[in-house]
Formats: sequence, structure tokens, C-alpha cells
Amino acid sequence: MSEGCVFCAKPDAEIICENELAKAFYDKFPVNEGHVLIVPKRHVSGFFEATPEEILAINELAFQVKTILDAKYSPDGYNIGVNVGASAGQTVFHLHMHIIPRYKGDVPDPRGGIRKIKKSVIPYPEEGE
Amino acid sequence: MSEGCVFCAKPDAEIICENELAKAFYDKFPVNEGHVLIVPKRHVSGFFEATPEEILAINELAFQVKTILDAKYSPDGYNIGVNVGASAGQTVFHLHMHIIPRYKGDVPDPRGGIRKIKKSVIPYPEEGE
Repeated sequence: MSEGCVFCAKPDAEIICENELAKAFYDKFPVNEGHVLIVPKRHVSGFFEATPEEILAINELAFQVKTILDAKYSPDGYNIGVNVGASAGQTVFHLHMHIIPRYKGDVPDPRGGIRKIKKSVIPYPEEGE
Repeated sequence: MSEGCVFCAKPDAEIICENELAKAFYDKFPVNEGHVLIVPKRHVSGFFEATPEEILAINELAFQVKTILDAKYSPDGYNIGVNVGASAGQTVFHLHMHIIPRYKGDVPDPRGGIRKIKKSVIPYPEEGE
């Protein structure tokens, strides 16, 4: 528990699923309906500071979250992602994996997905990823 | 091995690290210098079709890739992400995790990171993620 950390302080009532080392809850500023964050229960700042057991626990929850979101929202796809460091867009320094449901047509051209974080160094062609 | 799959057909010489179940190589259309993809060796279409052992193998490689990229490029951060399904931007249907090094100032405002895949349903404020 780290004082002042919004993810450490997350009320139990908001937890949608959990295991021994990780917990999941809805993002307060969802990119799409059903946007979930999965965090280790221990206050770990970034992905690469987590233990193998925590990484495993987070990924196990990702599969549980997918089952819950499939049943509730029937999305057409998902983006799974982690921002590591301020230069990568991380603003809450308690490791969190985003699980973002995607719906057909929610953007005009979804191709590339998380590549859209910035313009490519080498242009991304239509025919392959 | 799936016929016609560019990731199944990846030449051994291009593999930068591997373990029993997964392999890593540089993305041909990098978002930034050092952009790596990690894939299971088995032809698995999406993240949620992978076995727990494959997810573990991919994550173990993520840590190895980070060590390699830190030494080679000294990035300031990373985005880690997987697109699941065409509606989420997946175009090669062999599961792949993106490891994208980020460099201070590579975009004017990095905040939000992978949130930039689309406009939020609820606007993302300055003060928190």
C-alpha cells in the first residue's frame, strides 16, 4: 500500500475480479465501454519491476476479465496494453494493464491498433503488420 | 506452422531471442527504433487462444527483450501491447505482443499512451489515469 496511490486505495466494492496477487476494476476514464485495468495488489511502479508471479497473476486475470466483458458487452475485439514510464504515457505509477474492448466501427480505420500511439518511423503499409 | 503466415516463416537469422515456446524479432514497420514483436512459436491467432504456458513464455521474453533494448537504444519508456481481432487493429492473425521503446519527446504529449488508439468515451483528465 502506497499512500496517495489511487490504485492502492481502490475500494473493495469496485473490484470486479481478483486473485492472490492482482485485482481488476473499471477504468474511470474509459476509452470504450467496459475498459478495465488490472493491477498487482503490491504497489509496483512499472511492468518491469513486477515479479514473474505478479505478471502471471495479471495475465490470469486478463483471461477472467475477457470472459466477464464478453458476457456483458460482446465486444468485437480487445486491445491489451501497458504504458511503462512517463515518456510512454504512464501517469499513475502503479503498474496497470489496460483491457480495452473494441467494437466494430468505433474508429474509421482500426488497423494498427496500438501502433496509433505515434507516427511510425517506417510507414505501416496496408498489407501487413 | 501455418502456410502463408509471415511470423511462422520468420527466418531464424532474424530472431533476437527465444525460448521453448516463443520468439522475438524486430518489427518491419517500427513505430520507434527498436520496436520488437514477440510471438508464440505455435501458430495461435489471438491472445486469448494461447495457453498459459505460451503467455508465460511471451512475458518471459518481454523481460529479455527489455534488457537487450535498454543496452542497445537506452529508451526512456516502453509501450507493451497486443491487438486482438480486426476491430482492435490486428492485421496479422498470429498473436504478437508489441514491445515499443519510447524516447522523451517522441510525441508532443505522451500522456495516456495506448489510450490514443481512439477518443475516450469519458474525457481523460490531466490529473490521473
